[in-house]
Amino acid sequence: MSGKLYLIPVPLSDVAPESVLPATNVEVVRSLRYFVVENLRSARRFLKACDRSIDIDSLTIVELNEHTPREEVAGLLAPVIDGADCGVISEAGCPGVADPGADMVALAQRHGVEVVPLVGPSSILMGLMGSGFNGQNFAFLGYLPIEAPKRAAAMREMQQRVMRNSQTQIFIETPYRNNRLIRELTTSLPGHMLLCVASDITGPRQSIITRPISEWVSANYNYDKIPTIFLLYKDV
Amino acid sequence: MSGKLYLIPVPLSDVAPESVLPATNVEVVRSLRYFVVENLRSARRFLKACDRSIDIDSLTIVELNEHTPREEVAGLLAPVIDGADCGVISEAGCPGVADPGADMVALAQRHGVEVVPLVGPSSILMGLMGSGFNGQNFAFLGYLPIEAPKRAAAMREMQQRVMRNSQTQIFIETPYRNNRLIRELTTSLPGHMLLCVASDITGPRQSIITRPISEWVSANYNYDKIPTIFLLYKDV
Repeated sequence: MSGKLYLIPVPLSDVAPESVLPATNVEVVRSLRYFVVENLRSARRFLKACDRSIDIDSLTIVELNEHTPREEVAGLLAPVIDGADCGVISEAGCPGVADPGADMVALAQRHGVEVVPLVGPSSILMGLMGSGFNGQNFAFLGYLPIEAPKRAAAMREMQQRVMRNSQTQIFIETPYRNNRLIRELTTSLPGHMLLCVASDITGPRQSIITRPISEWVSANYNYDKIPTIFLLYKDV
Repeated sequence: MSGKLYLIPVPLSDVAPESVLPATNVEVVRSLRYFVVENLRSARRFLKACDRSIDIDSLTIVELNEHTPREEVAGLLAPVIDGADCGVISEAGCPGVADPGADMVALAQRHGVEVVPLVGPSSILMGLMGSGFNGQNFAFLGYLPIEAPKRAAAMREMQQRVMRNSQTQIFIETPYRNNRLIRELTTSLPGHMLLCVASDITGPRQSIITRPISEWVSANYNYDKIPTIFLLYKDV
């Protein structure tokens, strides 16, 4: 009988686990002896924050990140197929969404291993909640292309999907280019479109602001180096 | 100075709040005197589950649902603009996503009211985590069209967006038609596509299963009347 693969969210910012994670998550963490994590150092810090009495050195903690050869994922899953429960921890937020943990989940599904996602903070979902935009139809696109013509095309396509399909468009940027992205959006998109900038979600500088593009043009803002998520929609 | 609009998730199934909600959420609930809720009865039950000592009758709890005329939303927000904090509670899961609470959030944003989403369970996000599918590019489409030709077209379009754009497609169905939807998907989509059926998320019968369409054809399942979310992707 194979073990279970628990997907264990971590805080998005430097806050106490109990402020953004259910108590049950900590109980699951305490019950596990085997972890596959995106970053060893931040995962150890998280485990200690969950329970100071945890004996980290008695645990098996293995890294799975963008440097891990994909053929090694099977080896990471082997103990689970043999019966051990395993916790997957990504660097921030929910594992299995836009991180290498998804490879482990995909393989677990192929082997019929039970996958158990736990509740935790997601900037995509919390940004959507706070935006006031359409949550019945939305798309998360990750990063926009960097090359200028492709980037312009991506912005035109987002505009079309908002206007024609009433689909909220959600995307991110490398944090040090957040301000530049907003300037690009204000020059590329019509003034009546709505842009929500959701920044430092769950953190001390949290700010979720929806305004028409026409108001962002002259707004004061500085989101550089702050984790931020962007959402586009229309006035309805 | 206006108050804050807190978006307060509730459990997706009949479980104790602490198993799916951070402790901080209960503190926020305790601090509020004014609530706008999708369903009066379930919201009262949730408030009592958070804290048995809450004096429900001393609170102002107003309904906002699909029957509420949209012009009444401004009246519900008026106390917040005047300085009162307010909690928004939907019937299940996270308010502001696919429920009338989004209208309240949109209006709050227009008035510069601070919106504070709290962490809670989302079947969309937890289904995505557990599926093993692409979380860097995904779309939630709500319900598929009911009319046969439009429904067939929607399935073709989902297939195209998976194959061409590598975009995970997420959708739902009225629970009593879940089995029928799976049969339709198995006859409409190529056998190599992957279908994840994520059912009773966080509940006692939770099951998140990813299989190729070719295996769903002959699989034993019964998801009727169980809240379920469906995800499509491809083998990579």
